[in-house]
Amino acid sequence: MALIVQKYGGTSVGTLDRIRNVAARIKRTRDEGHQVVAVVSAMSGVTDGLIKMARELSENPSEREMDVLLATGEQQSIALVTMALQDLGVEAASITGRQAGIRTTGSHTRGRILNIDPTLMRQFLDAGKSLVVAGFQGVTPDGMIHTLGRGGSDLTAIAVAAALKADVCQILTDVDGVYTCDPRIVKNARKLPEISYDEMLEMASSGSKVMQSRSVEFAKKFGVVFEVRSSLNDNPGTLVLEEHPNMENVVIRGVSIERSQARLTVTGIPDEPGMSGRILGALADAEINIDMIISNIAHDGYARHSFTMHGSDLGKAQAALKPLLAVLPQAKIETEAGIAKLSAVGIGMRSHCGVAATMFRALGAANINIGMISTSEIKIAVTVDETRIEDAARAVHDAFELDKVPA
Amino acid sequence: MALIVQKYGGTSVGTLDRIRNVAARIKRTRDEGHQVVAVVSAMSGVTDGLIKMARELSENPSEREMDVLLATGEQQSIALVTMALQDLGVEAASITGRQAGIRTTGSHTRGRILNIDPTLMRQFLDAGKSLVVAGFQGVTPDGMIHTLGRGGSDLTAIAVAAALKADVCQILTDVDGVYTCDPRIVKNARKLPEISYDEMLEMASSGSKVMQSRSVEFAKKFGVVFEVRSSLNDNPGTLVLEEHPNMENVVIRGVSIERSQARLTVTGIPDEPGMSGRILGALADAEINIDMIISNIAHDGYARHSFTMHGSDLGKAQAALKPLLAVLPQAKIETEAGIAKLSAVGIGMRSHCGVAATMFRALGAANINIGMISTSEIKIAVTVDETRIEDAARAVHDAFELDKVPA
Repeated sequence: MALIVQKYGGTSVGTLDRIRNVAARIKRTRDEGHQVVAVVSAMSGVTDGLIKMARELSENPSEREMDVLLATGEQQSIALVTMALQDLGVEAASITGRQAGIRTTGSHTRGRILNIDPTLMRQFLDAGKSLVVAGFQGVTPDGMIHTLGRGGSDLTAIAVAAALKADVCQILTDVDGVYTCDPRIVKNARKLPEISYDEMLEMASSGSKVMQSRSVEFAKKFGVVFEVRSSLNDNPGTLVLEEHPNMENVVIRGVSIERSQARLTVTGIPDEPGMSGRILGALADAEINIDMIISNIAHDGYARHSFTMHGSDLGKAQAALKPLLAVLPQAKIETEAGIAKLSAVGIGMRSHCGVAATMFRALGAANINIGMISTSEIKIAVTVDETRIEDAARAVHDAFELDKVPA
Repeated sequence: MALIVQKYGGTSVGTLDRIRNVAARIKRTRDEGHQVVAVVSAMSGVTDGLIKMARELSENPSEREMDVLLATGEQQSIALVTMALQDLGVEAASITGRQAGIRTTGSHTRGRILNIDPTLMRQFLDAGKSLVVAGFQGVTPDGMIHTLGRGGSDLTAIAVAAALKADVCQILTDVDGVYTCDPRIVKNARKLPEISYDEMLEMASSGSKVMQSRSVEFAKKFGVVFEVRSSLNDNPGTLVLEEHPNMENVVIRGVSIERSQARLTVTGIPDEPGMSGRILGALADAEINIDMIISNIAHDGYARHSFTMHGSDLGKAQAALKPLLAVLPQAKIETEAGIAKLSAVGIGMRSHCGVAATMFRALGAANINIGMISTSEIKIAVTVDETRIEDAARAVHDAFELDKVPA
């Protein structure tokens, strides 16, 4: 008998019929002789409806109250899923974030999990019940309701799996697993049997929508092996785990893309200590997420800094830099919208040379111009014109033969 | 500076506009220099929507899970009302039943309040915040979410007022106060400035829709004076309190009616000890609420028992008695639907004779037949044909001159 944590997202519990399906799946797992702890999100649409009401009442609703409001979405789901289970004759109990002992820290609406006290969950499991735990929520040390922000239910599932020392943690979602590239773009993309935490992190932070980075980070930190698989079928998905010698021996594990990016370049910056910090500080204060950063000294002796960000942040970024640039007589801003980022990710890169050359050659052969380039130990990312991003993805996917199962 | 508890029902917070009105009212009370603790219900319709989902998933959803589900309705209301208050610049915080320290006992969906630990509420009040407390909910000694059943928000308000030693407890509702009779039936019904707990209890249990009995009982037990008043205007309402010498000196305080009643009479019951208990036990096991009970011995030596109940329970009651009557050869059931009950209530009855005579004379003069009669120390109730109940109410109201302010 294994203890299996299963996470069901908002789409999987989006209607009463889907809730019945989730209950049937939990029952099936139980009938196979396992203990099940299901972590569920709010029914899709519920959270958005609550946010809409809050915004109608206040332009800037208090984050403490947003937490109180939004936590009700998951609380409704756990009760409904539990009722559906009981209707199938399964002994089950709903468990709120507080009852699951999920202690959090950080500011409201963006909680981080501090620790989990699984006493109550253990009691119910020992009594033979399946549990349905509210994702996305916990409680602060002084007893206030706290939500975990985007992707919070994945985080709950992984943290609960860690706290209960579960044998398996399944993230059930509307995709079949992690692919070498988005199959809607690259037709011969292949589902990966395994991917390392680090690769999954790079994929997540470079546009792959499967999971938020912090859930993967948490899993890595606590060594929780999890599987991303479909809630609609029984196909095996993709295991996410620490890299190991028997992992498919590839240079590049996958390719991810991110659209609607923009570049902002500041030129004519005096080459003095602290200038980069002031520029980045101004952007951070305006809560703009900077992705790639490239800095160098031009032949005129002034520095130039280029950043990429989401296209919708471009205007805000220009406004945020104005006061600073007003006192620098040579400083100028250039912007470019309509670009996209392509990232090739793989731990094999560490021990292989020539990866960048293969990638650039493939893009060149497809007549695609490269804008900015940035690299990490296991990732090479480039920007290209947004109109060419799908061609670029196919060219790189082909160049590394990602459709083929490695020997 | 007074500490004022205000209870707003589901209709009062039924739309975002009404929530804004509630917030404005709380702010006005605060601007007058008072501390405010608002107890709110779920937005009207929300609870029914949740119950509907539950019933679609399961014919007989678990009561523990119903509590988890339904408690979200009030939790949403407290967040939204608090946001509306903050949008008006009022420092405020939402408080769930658990955070309000409301400890409960009893079975799920029908909780009773054991006690209240107001520590957290005190902290927030001392910090100058207005509080918005979730009505209808608390938490069991082992930490499970518990709802208080019908009228639970009134109960929360009265219990919170008791725990905080509030100066005033206002039950804000869609009626203006407690009237001598329903003004839709008796045009010259008069709003009462005061009514005693006992009278209010008799009114509540005899059809007056203003409040559930148990909230009044709780207020009486803990000596909480409360005022029933309109959430739509600033008119003074009706104070409910322990009787006192200066209370309006009347024989009858008010008249209440209850429609859709039915009578069930069992005849031919052997006059033996325990028979009544067996009959009433069978009805209780079937969860039928019996109102009036009249028993006597007929000239044939057999006993006859008559009961009134809600008309919709009549079929269930007949079915419940079948097994018992099957073994009593002389027993027979007679039923009569389409009757209504009129109750005249007043603590003055204790010291006045002839009240029943005045009442029966008035009904006779109006040519209205009396069916069953039952009395308590401060109430006389009669059944009449349902088609005559409004005439009966007007006749009795006139006979006791309830429209006139007592000298």
